[in-house]
Amino acid sequence: MQTPKKIAIVGSGLVGTLLAIYLKKLGHTVHVYDRSPDIRKINFSGRSINLVLSDRGIKALKDVGLEDEVLGIGIPVEKRAIHVGVDTVNEQFYGKDGEVIYSLSRGLLNKKMVDLAEQAGVDFYFEQKVWDVDLNTATISIGETERGEWFTKDYDITFGADGAFSRIRHRMQRQSMFNYSQEFLNIGYKELNIPANPDGKHKLNKNALHIWPRGNFMLMALANPNGSFTCTLFMPHDGENSFEELKTKEQLVEFFAKHFPDTKEVIPNLVEDFFKNPTSYLVTMKCFPWTFSDKVALIGDACHAIVPFYGHGMNAGFEDITVLNNMIEKYGDDWANLLNDYENSRKPNTDAIAELSYRNFMEMSSKTADEKFLLQKKIEKWFSDKHPDKWMPLYSRVTFSLQPYSEALAIGDFQNKIMEEILKIENIENKWNSEEVENMIIQLLNSK
Amino acid sequence: MQTPKKIAIVGSGLVGTLLAIYLKKLGHTVHVYDRSPDIRKINFSGRSINLVLSDRGIKALKDVGLEDEVLGIGIPVEKRAIHVGVDTVNEQFYGKDGEVIYSLSRGLLNKKMVDLAEQAGVDFYFEQKVWDVDLNTATISIGETERGEWFTKDYDITFGADGAFSRIRHRMQRQSMFNYSQEFLNIGYKELNIPANPDGKHKLNKNALHIWPRGNFMLMALANPNGSFTCTLFMPHDGENSFEELKTKEQLVEFFAKHFPDTKEVIPNLVEDFFKNPTSYLVTMKCFPWTFSDKVALIGDACHAIVPFYGHGMNAGFEDITVLNNMIEKYGDDWANLLNDYENSRKPNTDAIAELSYRNFMEMSSKTADEKFLLQKKIEKWFSDKHPDKWMPLYSRVTFSLQPYSEALAIGDFQNKIMEEILKIENIENKWNSEEVENMIIQLLNSK
Repeated sequence: MQTPKKIAIVGSGLVGTLLAIYLKKLGHTVHVYDRSPDIRKINFSGRSINLVLSDRGIKALKDVGLEDEVLGIGIPVEKRAIHVGVDTVNEQFYGKDGEVIYSLSRGLLNKKMVDLAEQAGVDFYFEQKVWDVDLNTATISIGETERGEWFTKDYDITFGADGAFSRIRHRMQRQSMFNYSQEFLNIGYKELNIPANPDGKHKLNKNALHIWPRGNFMLMALANPNGSFTCTLFMPHDGENSFEELKTKEQLVEFFAKHFPDTKEVIPNLVEDFFKNPTSYLVTMKCFPWTFSDKVALIGDACHAIVPFYGHGMNAGFEDITVLNNMIEKYGDDWANLLNDYENSRKPNTDAIAELSYRNFMEMSSKTADEKFLLQKKIEKWFSDKHPDKWMPLYSRVTFSLQPYSEALAIGDFQNKIMEEILKIENIENKWNSEEVENMIIQLLNSK
Repeated sequence: MQTPKKIAIVGSGLVGTLLAIYLKKLGHTVHVYDRSPDIRKINFSGRSINLVLSDRGIKALKDVGLEDEVLGIGIPVEKRAIHVGVDTVNEQFYGKDGEVIYSLSRGLLNKKMVDLAEQAGVDFYFEQKVWDVDLNTATISIGETERGEWFTKDYDITFGADGAFSRIRHRMQRQSMFNYSQEFLNIGYKELNIPANPDGKHKLNKNALHIWPRGNFMLMALANPNGSFTCTLFMPHDGENSFEELKTKEQLVEFFAKHFPDTKEVIPNLVEDFFKNPTSYLVTMKCFPWTFSDKVALIGDACHAIVPFYGHGMNAGFEDITVLNNMIEKYGDDWANLLNDYENSRKPNTDAIAELSYRNFMEMSSKTADEKFLLQKKIEKWFSDKHPDKWMPLYSRVTFSLQPYSEALAIGDFQNKIMEEILKIENIENKWNSEEVENMIIQLLNSK
């Protein structure tokens, strides 16, 4: 058991609220600050991608007894539905029978998490802008504007769960020996919407993640409980097939008619939503260290913001909390060593999911429409079903297992090299499930 | 000819002052701001590595008529003197006969550059802290402290020449789509000193860069005009053979007696200097973009801070000015396209010198004590002397030519692959200058 501390958490997002619940249940006093209003009191929409919850995130919720509460507002998703042409939809199951991920509306989930944290006894301070933290004392500075008056609040420990543009990290970044990088993709995204049918039912299969892969751009859709889908259009900011090219209503309608003709019926408010909703940016942010002595620590997007293409932003952030909780069990009151072990053990794994997420844009936007890629997935699934002890596909390692991300990435790369060899086999299209192929895979696996 | 503008330059270092001279000579009004006092009025010492000036830097000085002024305070350096043991000093010439680089004291040179800029009509504002710039208007904000009162000054264009921790870049970094990275080496450095002999002469050969390579740490020395040498000790911050291990006078003296016994006579103030001078950090910083419309631009360390192991920090910064000046000749008053072309054409080259500089720590600290490496250098020099049209060693391309850094890096990598093959030849030690080796190099060159 830990000695109770007075802890500030900056950020009332998904990671901030779940961390607050963990720390409160350990007996600490927990104050959560957010510069925005209480999400339960505002209309939250227009700039979010639906979230995907999978095993790592579920584990962190389950360990603190919140699994059922959260899965109750999620929709199970068992496959990709790949809209390759007007009438052609290919399906690709994510895992084995019964293995699903959950589609969650960010707004809905965040409201639920604030409720749950409040019920657990966490205190929230909304519309309180934290601009600075003293790394030696964990004291935070709060004020209306960056250049205006600030007042201070003292804490024993301050956590920065304040996202990709974290102010807590901003302070840490001014130290010597602080490594930092931010890299923007030339891909932006915009939220669109598929409303429910008049009877409240979903217009498309709600248990699939729908993708319209079109090379350097794509549309995707994930279901909400109210019968609607949240859609996200990903495309370059400028250049060919880009947001820059879609300046007028006519250009937009023509573009969708050409590339996504089958969405005309299901996205009735295309023009209104497109020009009303902002175009958002995608950034990969890495830094190190994440902590300062026993006083200040970063968690979630504040120390490892990733692009959304593996659906692991929230899962990775929640897994940070699992790792931190393991360290609390291991070190008790020794917060300095606890935080040190947390950042060192976690860093290689968040670097790995950053890499996997970055690579997955090409997989989703272009490879899902590629025959060779689909054949590879088919062979992997067939071999894995026959030899589950010998082969777990990369997606399953990342999403349906708790294997550290860095190990999943390394094994995935090895498996990919094997599949490259297999796909070179002459006439592989017709003998992909033959004994010859099976034996060759086994041989290549043993040659490791 | 350009229309005269009112231009602010933030930073009165080497790049800021040279840029000011260029812009003043073009007819602009130029105001240079610096948060520090006038370097001519203070005692500048204790935390600098001596500078090395070579062809790229000389070209930028020459084009504005300052070559002689600057070379007058420099000392020609023609070779590395590699102190491998107490009595063994290996020599390695940098280039062909007459090819030299120049050792310059940073303080001395910076004072001279401020003098020269003032003579050219540039106005200096010292002890004026610029905290912010408005990217849309180029207006700068100045004040005593970051959180105190600020006043503003209007300009047509503002240049950030304010070094690795640039405030101008700090503002640009808050934009979307701004890529940025800072990576610290776990190598620190400390200034030491070899005083002149009583007769004012140098204690070591002044026309050599002296290195004591010791694996993961090294000492180096570069001559000053007053008979002294500025020495720099590079070593890890922590771990084996590190600054952390040298906490007491006894530890320090014993360490130097063990690893640098031949320096005992020439560094009399070791203990005093070591504990008086700070341990400094080494960072590689990259970012993009460097400019904002026709209003704000970064230059020198402010947009590409590199580690000092190739001796190209100042040369790369001065070459930025050459490139900018070429763009001024090309675009005239079209500052938006001028700055755009400047950043796009320059960026791959500053990335390349960052990479070359990073690699060169291992070359200096460890490879210079390696027989195989010295043999490779000997073969390259021999072949290059015989076939100057076919082979220019990488160091010469970087230092004694104006070839873009990115091309030099690419060709250097190709040459290195060839030398790897050559060094595999059996008994190469004894036939390194044979016809067989000569023909093999020619053959490998043609196989490109």
